[in-house]
Amino acid sequence: VTLDLLLIGFGHVGRRFADLLVECRPALAALGVEPRIVGIATARHGALFDEGGLDAVAAARRIEGGGVLAPAGVPAVDLMARLAKAGTGIPVLVETTPLDVQAAEPALTHVRAALARRVHVITANKGPVAFAYRELAGAASESGVAFLFEGAVMDGIPIFNLVRETLPACRIAGFRGVVNSTTNYILTALEEGEAFDAALGRMQAAGVAEADPSLDVDGWDAAAKAVAMANVWLDAGRSPRDVAREGLGPETAARARAARAAGRRLKLVASARAAEPRADVRVVLEELAADDPLANLDGQSNALELDTWPTGRIVITQRDGGLEKTAYALVSDLVTLARRRGARA
Amino acid sequence: VTLDLLLIGFGHVGRRFADLLVECRPALAALGVEPRIVGIATARHGALFDEGGLDAVAAARRIEGGGVLAPAGVPAVDLMARLAKAGTGIPVLVETTPLDVQAAEPALTHVRAALARRVHVITANKGPVAFAYRELAGAASESGVAFLFEGAVMDGIPIFNLVRETLPACRIAGFRGVVNSTTNYILTALEEGEAFDAALGRMQAAGVAEADPSLDVDGWDAAAKAVAMANVWLDAGRSPRDVAREGLGPETAARARAARAAGRRLKLVASARAAEPRADVRVVLEELAADDPLANLDGQSNALELDTWPTGRIVITQRDGGLEKTAYALVSDLVTLARRRGARA
Repeated sequence: VTLDLLLIGFGHVGRRFADLLVECRPALAALGVEPRIVGIATARHGALFDEGGLDAVAAARRIEGGGVLAPAGVPAVDLMARLAKAGTGIPVLVETTPLDVQAAEPALTHVRAALARRVHVITANKGPVAFAYRELAGAASESGVAFLFEGAVMDGIPIFNLVRETLPACRIAGFRGVVNSTTNYILTALEEGEAFDAALGRMQAAGVAEADPSLDVDGWDAAAKAVAMANVWLDAGRSPRDVAREGLGPETAARARAARAAGRRLKLVASARAAEPRADVRVVLEELAADDPLANLDGQSNALELDTWPTGRIVITQRDGGLEKTAYALVSDLVTLARRRGARA
Repeated sequence: VTLDLLLIGFGHVGRRFADLLVECRPALAALGVEPRIVGIATARHGALFDEGGLDAVAAARRIEGGGVLAPAGVPAVDLMARLAKAGTGIPVLVETTPLDVQAAEPALTHVRAALARRVHVITANKGPVAFAYRELAGAASESGVAFLFEGAVMDGIPIFNLVRETLPACRIAGFRGVVNSTTNYILTALEEGEAFDAALGRMQAAGVAEADPSLDVDGWDAAAKAVAMANVWLDAGRSPRDVAREGLGPETAARARAARAAGRRLKLVASARAAEPRADVRVVLEELAADDPLANLDGQSNALELDTWPTGRIVITQRDGGLEKTAYALVSDLVTLARRRGARA
């Protein structure tokens, strides 16, 4: 199965994805999957389109060296139209623009445009699934295309694929997880006596936290992830602005140290439970017992506990986070898509 | 997709599977999967066969009430021949006879006979995959049928499906896990000051350990599981008799208590690493640091850490074990099989 990919967004994740496609080419070929990047659209570094396929690795290096792709930028949606008309392969949008917690834009516009044109969508952006899952899943179904977003939560660790592919006929009653790495880093630093501002500054210097850290520190990222999962598994129909949400601040340091002194751990826990009329979703600081599977997560570790029937409580833990793992999530979505289109292992 | 099932072995797991098929019928129908039990073969309680489908739940209750299925037992392999010839649905052997660590019999004979007759195989028995994975995978491939065994390790928690369905194009360098519940129970009891014989006796009384507990206590069950995984993921080509294997005994109590006193946990760890010419597989007692993801597993909890590229270390933890979960593994294998045969979600 040949897949013709249009990349919208070509930041760290998108560029790492381009590299990973080359590194995984033999393994993908063995699965019957032949991806080909035909277009790249960026907000500030120009765009490229060649329906015969282009050298995305070279494009990545050019941008990393301070260059641009093409002198005049082409609107991303115009490239979508060319993709839908052009190729011989299956057209796929790979959306990796940054998260916007106010309205999920421009990702939502890109995803809608793709689905309307019968272009398959894979994305590492949690915005569309957190803000408009029902609408987008309905549009994808109507157009007969896939809408996949494994990278939206816990990087490349299978979460959505875990439930859909490996827990068929299971019921999910709820979940709880530590799903934001920056706050998890900061909480560990606070336990060790660092002050909040110092810990946050160190995270920013290391490139872990954003220049504007409120997305992480105020719990928005965790809320978007919790809502994404609740929308998919519990039909929550919520948005990130619509859930109980707690964040971290200077006052958190005393709580974190007190918990640690008592043999417990303070963690920012994102959770949801099935409820009528709508699932209950929340992001709150919780003191966890030392033997809680969410308690012993340091640094970039994330974990999610699913409460299922008949398989009981299942925890999946990511011990090594990072951009490369998010890029892998896009690769795994490509394989899911190709398998649905008849590729054979 | 209609699946015609022949159950060989109808113990706790097989009977629970029969119940679960009824409980999951709507969810399975939504996935396009219509299973129908057409035959049941037991070693000591007779057999039944009706190519139009039979009432397996009633049969389960009859056996639990001390009855038998049919006055004269029919050899299981004869039923396989009838299954292969009979039905209108896809023929599937569901093998749940007990584990034999010497030669994997009679399960191995049943699986070979099925694959030779182009009958798909799903099993919760770890013997065949631990003793003859290469041969059986080859035979299945040659016959164009499936050989699935999700229930062989960690009950219904996806392990084999996790890797195959959700980590495509990943490389696995090794794994380590706590995969035997009886020894995990005993180690926890030893830490709490119970004597080995008393702890083991309590497990037997509770029905957790076997009447002959050597399968668990001497590490055979863990070794069979480690070999099963190593054969599938690392092409180890080993058998359970062919790996370093440690067990528990009265002398283990002092080690468990000393570890606990030092803030560590003694666990029976099954592990494997890719190596030349063959993967290194072992089952050994290890002292784990308190924050090791395998350390905080009590009672029926199991966990497995996979060392993967590019996704790093992934841990999957089962917090609630038990027969029902093993029965679910067979249900999930049915769905995997049906999806390969074109059933649609």
